[in-house]
Amino acid sequence: QAQTTPLSFYGTMDLAVGKLSSQPPGPPNAPVTSVNGVHNGGVQTSYFGLRGTEDLGDGLKAKFQLESFLRADTGASGRFNPPGPPQDPLWSRAAWVGLEGGFGELRLGNNTNPSWLANVFTSAMGSNSLFSPSFRQQYNGSTRGYMAQDTGLSNSLSYSSPMLAGTVVTVNVQASEGTGSGNNLNGSVVHRAGPLLLALAGARVQHVPSPDPAGALDEQFVMLGAHYDLKVVTLFAQYTDFKDKLGNIKIRTPHIGLTAPVGTGQVQLAWAEGKTSGAASGKRTTTSAGYLHPLSRRTQLYLMVGTDKVSTGTAKSYVTGIRHTF
Amino acid sequence: QAQTTPLSFYGTMDLAVGKLSSQPPGPPNAPVTSVNGVHNGGVQTSYFGLRGTEDLGDGLKAKFQLESFLRADTGASGRFNPPGPPQDPLWSRAAWVGLEGGFGELRLGNNTNPSWLANVFTSAMGSNSLFSPSFRQQYNGSTRGYMAQDTGLSNSLSYSSPMLAGTVVTVNVQASEGTGSGNNLNGSVVHRAGPLLLALAGARVQHVPSPDPAGALDEQFVMLGAHYDLKVVTLFAQYTDFKDKLGNIKIRTPHIGLTAPVGTGQVQLAWAEGKTSGAASGKRTTTSAGYLHPLSRRTQLYLMVGTDKVSTGTAKSYVTGIRHTF
Amino acid sequence: QAQTTPLSFYGTMDLAVGKLSSQPPGPPNAPVTSVNGVHNGGVQTSYFGLRGTEDLGDGLKAKFQLESFLRADTGASGRFNPPGPPQDPLWSRAAWVGLEGGFGELRLGNNTNPSWLANVFTSAMGSNSLFSPSFRQQYNGSTRGYMAQDTGLSNSLSYSSPMLAGTVVTVNVQASEGTGSGNNLNGSVVHRAGPLLLALAGARVQHVPSPDPAGALDEQFVMLGAHYDLKVVTLFAQYTDFKDKLGNIKIRTPHIGLTAPVGTGQVQLAWAEGKTSGAASGKRTTTSAGYLHPLSRRTQLYLMVGTDKVSTGTAKSYVTGIRHTF
Repeated sequence: QAQTTPLSFYGTMDLAVGKLSSQPPGPPNAPVTSVNGVHNGGVQTSYFGLRGTEDLGDGLKAKFQLESFLRADTGASGRFNPPGPPQDPLWSRAAWVGLEGGFGELRLGNNTNPSWLANVFTSAMGSNSLFSPSFRQQYNGSTRGYMAQDTGLSNSLSYSSPMLAGTVVTVNVQASEGTGSGNNLNGSVVHRAGPLLLALAGARVQHVPSPDPAGALDEQFVMLGAHYDLKVVTLFAQYTDFKDKLGNIKIRTPHIGLTAPVGTGQVQLAWAEGKTSGAASGKRTTTSAGYLHPLSRRTQLYLMVGTDKVSTGTAKSYVTGIRHTF
Repeated sequence: QAQTTPLSFYGTMDLAVGKLSSQPPGPPNAPVTSVNGVHNGGVQTSYFGLRGTEDLGDGLKAKFQLESFLRADTGASGRFNPPGPPQDPLWSRAAWVGLEGGFGELRLGNNTNPSWLANVFTSAMGSNSLFSPSFRQQYNGSTRGYMAQDTGLSNSLSYSSPMLAGTVVTVNVQASEGTGSGNNLNGSVVHRAGPLLLALAGARVQHVPSPDPAGALDEQFVMLGAHYDLKVVTLFAQYTDFKDKLGNIKIRTPHIGLTAPVGTGQVQLAWAEGKTSGAASGKRTTTSAGYLHPLSRRTQLYLMVGTDKVSTGTAKSYVTGIRHTF
Repeated sequence: QAQTTPLSFYGTMDLAVGKLSSQPPGPPNAPVTSVNGVHNGGVQTSYFGLRGTEDLGDGLKAKFQLESFLRADTGASGRFNPPGPPQDPLWSRAAWVGLEGGFGELRLGNNTNPSWLANVFTSAMGSNSLFSPSFRQQYNGSTRGYMAQDTGLSNSLSYSSPMLAGTVVTVNVQASEGTGSGNNLNGSVVHRAGPLLLALAGARVQHVPSPDPAGALDEQFVMLGAHYDLKVVTLFAQYTDFKDKLGNIKIRTPHIGLTAPVGTGQVQLAWAEGKTSGAASGKRTTTSAGYLHPLSRRTQLYLMVGTDKVSTGTAKSYVTGIRHTF
């Protein structure tokens, strides 16, 4: 157990004060609720992690990563306050070991979904789970996203190709492991060419990853997204086509946004509108704006505001806070 | 996420063998119970933590801290064995990010209570939750303390003033966050002048911090405390005036103590007597004595004994152990 | 809290793909079940830890260790997926502080059992909880081992003698701490002489360690084990005599194995047969084979196969994976 290469410890502490509103997960047509106070993750969910790399020679590397989400407002491990989505395991953000070489990278464990990374790359508000309109509408967090899948898959095997002509293909497969349903698949093709990033992503979800309660599911989606750096302004666009085949529901979600410098800071604007058809119908419109003021490369002060028009009203949120990356 | 300043990892492992007795939390007039065996925290509750500071220039610093209590006797996270007080979150001792500058220090997250720090400064047995008479009688741990508040407040904003003429003012505010009651407030004024430390602290508690079960409360207290370093002996005194306004109960608790060197070691003596009046009445007398023998600056062997006279008898405790700070 | 000596952080990430089969813990004559997918710990249960040593002078050292098992396939803390054995505390693998000197080593906390270490030393598959036949049959994990005791004892005091003529004696005592039954004892005598390691170990278990549910127990066992290094091949043998005195059950388990180099890799073979007599009777035969291919001193690829003939059939398992020690 002699330690020949140093481990890295790292993470983000992001806390804000203000008002957060959303239609909570649970029964349909639940009223919008608001909480005033101190909130975790106004820009990014707080976490800490450790990782290591060992050079095995001939371009081969062994790598591992362990990352743990935390609610920095209470000190609790994981992302969600009960009641709500199931509680996270300790190493909820990542837990994998793998090999990297000329063949690409192969990882086993609790792996981040490539479709989620494609979303982050092509969203003006990146991984902001509270304000990014595409995150709020799509992901199964505290804001009643429509997808059963989470941002990662436990019990999974993940493969990323080497970059070829600016293109990387990533696939994540999660075995059903006795849940009595099919495997889950998640994948992306990400192409980078100068100022352009183009991403095609998709998933088939046939069971809900542990530790969520199991149940028969058949969800599929495809997302096409891009960002384009105009030097001053960067533009972002996504289109997601989602089907819940058992529930006979389709949801189509265009999502656009931009980031622009203002002095040393950055303004973020984003909008998404999900239209549901099939066994249910409806429209959800989410608009957010943010300003990040850097105190350093690692530390920013920020202001975030957003509205989220759902079936029972409009959830209005605004927070100001600090994100510190360590 | 490049790490430009090193993180610090640190903590305390404190374990002892012996007998611990107390009237356990729960129904009134519960009999005193004793446990013989291996115990966590004969001098200080074990914990580990990490912290970092980033220099932002112009005297401004970004800081964060994550600290996790642990029961080193079983390896469990948090402070309490069930049944008893609610289980702690992972980062129960601290979880905050903040800014320090000429204006003082502002922190967001799970912050230590200034009234608790004032208690530690003016108590001969400091943060000893098992033997310090004021800790045993007042704090909501395994020894049936009378205060609903804990040693910290989650979801809080904490502000400390710069030191002015030896004086620092600290205020901790916890929003009610949907608990349907008012905010919690906790504050202190601590004055240092040569051998003297003088502390005035107080709190208003209107709900119990998460993850404790919510409920209507109105507790208030004021504490005046001091220590005085006579070069050989240091004297400690506190007076706490506590009111449970909904329960119509008052408790007044004088607490005195001293520390004195014996060879290279230190003797600690402390006594407190809480008198309850109002809807209930009674008297609780707690006396403790300890000896710490240093093996180094970081490591001590110790012997602690104490009696705690409660409504149903006298709880007698004695342990011998080791505290190692890393 | 100034840190004068560096802490060490270390651990193992071990993940595999394949099929795991076993008769699960629970009611007798449960059918064998299998899970295909990604599994934690094909060679060794994943964990991470930190430890520190402080030199106190005169040959005296203060030491501590905190180690946390993890299921790297899901990111969960601890070893077991529910339902099954009770969930582990955070620092389930170790949590202790102690002193080392000319007198030997004394530790307080959650200490590894010397009988388990003696088992690891004299087993061809070491601490492999999924494939080592003696581990599968004896230890209270996911494979219905017959012993109530775990691989460590919380709330324990552990003493190891200095090595004298190649011999070390270790005793671990766990107080009953209010469980209403006697103390648990666990001990070993380990003798090393050139290519030979000889171990005598035993235990008396009168209650199940926290956090397992308490209950009256009286289990005793004695194990005699050895390994002998023939330079190319190393031979391993164990004989365990186990009694459940309250249940009137005896189980005798011979266990043999060998390791041999194949190119730069290592082959492992092991076999055990437990014979039950008394109030119940039966025979359980477990045979395993493995191959470890080193990519470096710290990283191995492996293939493990095994059969476990239990009352309701034969559980067949095979996995291929990677173990990375950091």
